[in-house]
Amino acid sequence: MTSIDLRSDTVTRPDERMRTAMATAEVGDDVLDGDPTMRRLEDRAAELLGMPAALWVPTGCMGNTIALMLHLKRGDSFLAPEDAHVLNHELGTAAWLAGGMPQALPCDVGPGRFSPDAVRAATDNTGPYHSMRTSLLCLENTHNSAGGTVLPPEEHGRLVAVARDQRLAVHLDGARLWNAAVAAGVSPAELTTGVDTVQSCLSKGLGAPMGSVVAGTEEFVGEARRIRKMLGGGVRQGGVVAAAGLVALERIEDLAVDHDNARALADGLAELGWRVREPQTNILLAELPGLTQAEALERLTALGVLAGPMAGQVRFVTHRDVSKSDIDEVLNRMRRSEWAGSSSTTARS
Amino acid sequence: MTSIDLRSDTVTRPDERMRTAMATAEVGDDVLDGDPTMRRLEDRAAELLGMPAALWVPTGCMGNTIALMLHLKRGDSFLAPEDAHVLNHELGTAAWLAGGMPQALPCDVGPGRFSPDAVRAATDNTGPYHSMRTSLLCLENTHNSAGGTVLPPEEHGRLVAVARDQRLAVHLDGARLWNAAVAAGVSPAELTTGVDTVQSCLSKGLGAPMGSVVAGTEEFVGEARRIRKMLGGGVRQGGVVAAAGLVALERIEDLAVDHDNARALADGLAELGWRVREPQTNILLAELPGLTQAEALERLTALGVLAGPMAGQVRFVTHRDVSKSDIDEVLNRMRRSEWAGSSSTTARS
Amino acid sequence: MTSIDLRSDTVTRPDERMRTAMATAEVGDDVLDGDPTMRRLEDRAAELLGMPAALWVPTGCMGNTIALMLHLKRGDSFLAPEDAHVLNHELGTAAWLAGGMPQALPCDVGPGRFSPDAVRAATDNTGPYHSMRTSLLCLENTHNSAGGTVLPPEEHGRLVAVARDQRLAVHLDGARLWNAAVAAGVSPAELTTGVDTVQSCLSKGLGAPMGSVVAGTEEFVGEARRIRKMLGGGVRQGGVVAAAGLVALERIEDLAVDHDNARALADGLAELGWRVREPQTNILLAELPGLTQAEALERLTALGVLAGPMAGQVRFVTHRDVSKSDIDEVLNRMRRSEWAGSSSTTARS
Amino acid sequence: MTSIDLRSDTVTRPDERMRTAMATAEVGDDVLDGDPTMRRLEDRAAELLGMPAALWVPTGCMGNTIALMLHLKRGDSFLAPEDAHVLNHELGTAAWLAGGMPQALPCDVGPGRFSPDAVRAATDNTGPYHSMRTSLLCLENTHNSAGGTVLPPEEHGRLVAVARDQRLAVHLDGARLWNAAVAAGVSPAELTTGVDTVQSCLSKGLGAPMGSVVAGTEEFVGEARRIRKMLGGGVRQGGVVAAAGLVALERIEDLAVDHDNARALADGLAELGWRVREPQTNILLAELPGLTQAEALERLTALGVLAGPMAGQVRFVTHRDVSKSDIDEVLNRMRRSEWAGSSSTTARS
Repeated sequence: MTSIDLRSDTVTRPDERMRTAMATAEVGDDVLDGDPTMRRLEDRAAELLGMPAALWVPTGCMGNTIALMLHLKRGDSFLAPEDAHVLNHELGTAAWLAGGMPQALPCDVGPGRFSPDAVRAATDNTGPYHSMRTSLLCLENTHNSAGGTVLPPEEHGRLVAVARDQRLAVHLDGARLWNAAVAAGVSPAELTTGVDTVQSCLSKGLGAPMGSVVAGTEEFVGEARRIRKMLGGGVRQGGVVAAAGLVALERIEDLAVDHDNARALADGLAELGWRVREPQTNILLAELPGLTQAEALERLTALGVLAGPMAGQVRFVTHRDVSKSDIDEVLNRMRRSEWAGSSSTTARS
Repeated sequence: MTSIDLRSDTVTRPDERMRTAMATAEVGDDVLDGDPTMRRLEDRAAELLGMPAALWVPTGCMGNTIALMLHLKRGDSFLAPEDAHVLNHELGTAAWLAGGMPQALPCDVGPGRFSPDAVRAATDNTGPYHSMRTSLLCLENTHNSAGGTVLPPEEHGRLVAVARDQRLAVHLDGARLWNAAVAAGVSPAELTTGVDTVQSCLSKGLGAPMGSVVAGTEEFVGEARRIRKMLGGGVRQGGVVAAAGLVALERIEDLAVDHDNARALADGLAELGWRVREPQTNILLAELPGLTQAEALERLTALGVLAGPMAGQVRFVTHRDVSKSDIDEVLNRMRRSEWAGSSSTTARS
Repeated sequence: MTSIDLRSDTVTRPDERMRTAMATAEVGDDVLDGDPTMRRLEDRAAELLGMPAALWVPTGCMGNTIALMLHLKRGDSFLAPEDAHVLNHELGTAAWLAGGMPQALPCDVGPGRFSPDAVRAATDNTGPYHSMRTSLLCLENTHNSAGGTVLPPEEHGRLVAVARDQRLAVHLDGARLWNAAVAAGVSPAELTTGVDTVQSCLSKGLGAPMGSVVAGTEEFVGEARRIRKMLGGGVRQGGVVAAAGLVALERIEDLAVDHDNARALADGLAELGWRVREPQTNILLAELPGLTQAEALERLTALGVLAGPMAGQVRFVTHRDVSKSDIDEVLNRMRRSEWAGSSSTTARS
Repeated sequence: MTSIDLRSDTVTRPDERMRTAMATAEVGDDVLDGDPTMRRLEDRAAELLGMPAALWVPTGCMGNTIALMLHLKRGDSFLAPEDAHVLNHELGTAAWLAGGMPQALPCDVGPGRFSPDAVRAATDNTGPYHSMRTSLLCLENTHNSAGGTVLPPEEHGRLVAVARDQRLAVHLDGARLWNAAVAAGVSPAELTTGVDTVQSCLSKGLGAPMGSVVAGTEEFVGEARRIRKMLGGGVRQGGVVAAAGLVALERIEDLAVDHDNARALADGLAELGWRVREPQTNILLAELPGLTQAEALERLTALGVLAGPMAGQVRFVTHRDVSKSDIDEVLNRMRRSEWAGSSSTTARS
């Protein structure tokens, strides 16, 4: 029985076209001269993101960290939605490396979404000299832990506006911004309107083996390049992986398939009695009443279905290495097993 | 009209006895040899706190920072009740200097108080190698921003027990632990049971002009002494201020007067139509319906009554430089003014 | 006129065999499961380096930084030979990120080489509690800024021995350790005897497009993997670049060609009147009497010969993308130009 | 036999006048309002130092650290004379807290003194984006480890001029600047000409029990006040120790006595066969040929003469708690002992 891996879209493997691009990439010493393929990737990413300039980084974590290091200073705090990746999944670098005191915003609008009022209430720069200063708002689109939720363009716009009004800089953790754009039916650039900096991944749903970009002004990218060298991300013939990134950027629209697959999986699970949160993109949070998270994961594993834990639920992530027929197979395996529940009780939330 | 200063117990001034003690203190070079008065203070503080050893520090902030620097390492997170002083009022040192990612615990039991379940829910050390580790629980007793609330001994005990069970170290920010002990009718040592480290202030209600102690094992204090030197807190003839601290430690029981005064003020304000939170110690949070925080503070100032903003309300703090007759005078001034409300509507919560 | 690039061995480009290996590499999610090619690379590197375990990192800078972060703590100082890469060329990460106060050892034995006495003289751990502690010795083999100088096995052994005697940990910056081994006629493992940790580059002379390894005990590598994730070096399908690293590790013996070419270049330059330092490996420091460093570099550039500045001299680096006939061409171009000096005055030092 | 303590001028104890000033000081909450005595001290110190503004700090270490934190950023290096206090005696805070990579300047002019050329040679800001930036020159006057040596006004001026020319900021560690001024026969302000920031101690020779000032522009002091709070140096009724500082500042001229005593001690030791470095201020480095540093210190201790180790020699420090007759007594005790050498061989260097 072949395992079907729905743990994360990070498991995607480069396909033949991508590998060929890597094998034939024009390269140079990116530290000394700028690698030509790297430059093309960075230009293309900047264009797609609607930002003046972009910089390749080995990982999304490094992209977020660089941006936060440049936005924050000692004594600053920053705002981010509760359960944001920069808060919970980056080993505290926002605090010990970028130097900011995090303040989690309650998601008062819905999973992964918060109101301009939440930003206003959490910002206080009126105190005496010995008070922290709130200096940055971090957005996350899609919001991973909330279940791949989309921050729609108009809502994004209102949050950026209140940040400006409160004199906060704005960084967008857009690790899966491409999914948000496809789901919202807009260009990625429409979802970066007004932000100072954005980070987006070339791996994950787009399928590159590694790499992200962090984008902002030319001046920001100049400083970011220096910080990247400090953190150990200044690679040499990066063109070999940048070539994969260029192919990845041609595949944004393919993400619609993953979103369809997530919905199909949600429908099937609901029929099997799971309580599912309607997926907006390629991430599905679900639970089977009567089973703990650990029990559910264990039984799925026994069926050769790999999923992961997230926020107390089971997280299924669809991606380009999982087809519609894989989803059907997942559901068939579950239907054939005793434990997975009857179709008698369906629950959608 | 003389101002009556209820902004904070930090405004207390050393009295004659304390000044005489300072003027006649035996001193030495505390970095080179150990200042004899400093040693006496540290021994006495350790004894009162029920800890093996203690170290004088110039401020409570430094005491908390040293403890957190020694408890935390990169990649760790720590728990503290929402609005804790280490989270909101220490300029982010817990993050950028001690290196910990803070996680605010919801106060599910009441203002300043949270349940063992909240600790359990927030602790997760089961993740893979790239997950943060929750390593520390910070308590705050009394809890300042919640209104000087007391964590009673049995509740303290349950929280320490769950921390142990979860393999968390425990630091107690006891800036006003003396107030908590007096209010709870127990010795300060009963409120440090099971903690690894505790910080308590000699200034504030006890009236010393400066200084706190941070206490723990002998080994901890040895390391703390080294960190204190790094941070710039290794003073020379510290005996001059330690002498004030020794006097301060004889005055713990006097805090009961401040607590009585806070209750008297609460009663008087309630009669004047303020919505007050029943004070447990020397801190009173109150609001006058119909007035914003800023308006209320402004009008109080016009009456020569100095108070401060805290958590959206007006904070009044009683202390040894404010007498019962000062409290009466405050209430009289308010009664004579038009704005302060009639006695017709009282509200206690 | 084609440029001949002798600025650094970092400019080497992956050849067909390496590109094919990358294109056909078996891959997996290295963060979640361990990428199989990555694991093979790390195992092979550990074996060659004679260390229990190894970890791939995107750059040598990250490898050194991780090691120093794990060796050093606040209040520590570390020793490194003057002009070491960790002192001058890593943007101060040893200080602000790893937390160590650097102490440069005078190279009293020769360029890039220092005596056990120098280590003894610089180590002082006998001071009072408020003194820095010397905790680490950093070696560099070959020593880049000194001109690719080799620390021979027996000298290495004596330095490790004195470090042990002084209770210092030992980290070896072996970015070009492979060159040192080839030049000394020993295995790389003979040059890591007794060290705690070592970093070695797969790019540079070995020709991989990116990547280094940092090696030590299993426990060290476990911690290093966690730090790598923090710094943003935890890539996903790293097998695509690890495959290049595996090819690189088969080519260690090829470095002898680079060394021969460096000597040929040194001979030729000496005949042209340059003052050259006899190269031990693939790095040649030289100067032409009468010309400043900047003037010499400018004139070389005009001839299509790219070199770089280092320690006040011109640094030429031979590598696998420069052949013996390229070296001949460099010398021919210089002979044909007026400025490069006559052959009448030769100088070797 | 009473001990005579020549280990450091940090051992000075506040006298009656100073204690009376402390006992009667007008105080306030320095964090909330500014303590009135603190303000007077800071104004007076700024005036004496010829700087726009000054800030009290508990220790000289904190003053230096605050200045370096405000001058330096990640990727910067700074210059300081070899064996400077900020390099060797502040537990590495310049590195791990202020974030700077230190570069020790060789003292090519004499003990504690270096040339403008040394500054020029060590500054390099012409490198590519991934190079460190030299951003700060730290002076130390008097230079402690070199033996209390004075940087005379004109030499100071030349060093500031070259720093400006190289676009370096200048911080002056003037822990004992008062001694330098008295020895040079100029006002302290003449020795701060052109610097951006300066730190000077009120303890040490001036005799306050604790405290230093760090001075610079109004804007600098505003930022420094914020950093002071972060580090835990924001005390409350600081007037009690500021009062001692005000008395201390009236006693600058008294330091001449200490300098005379140091010279008398040097003369006496030379007659006893010690090799002494002619003291310029209140610090005397000496050694007795035939004895190690440890042996010499041990024998002195047996005579009730306390001195300390410094730079391989014995350091004697004169101060206001040691009189001329104490110096005579020291010499008499040594003359009466066998070991201290005959007067037959004198050596001055």
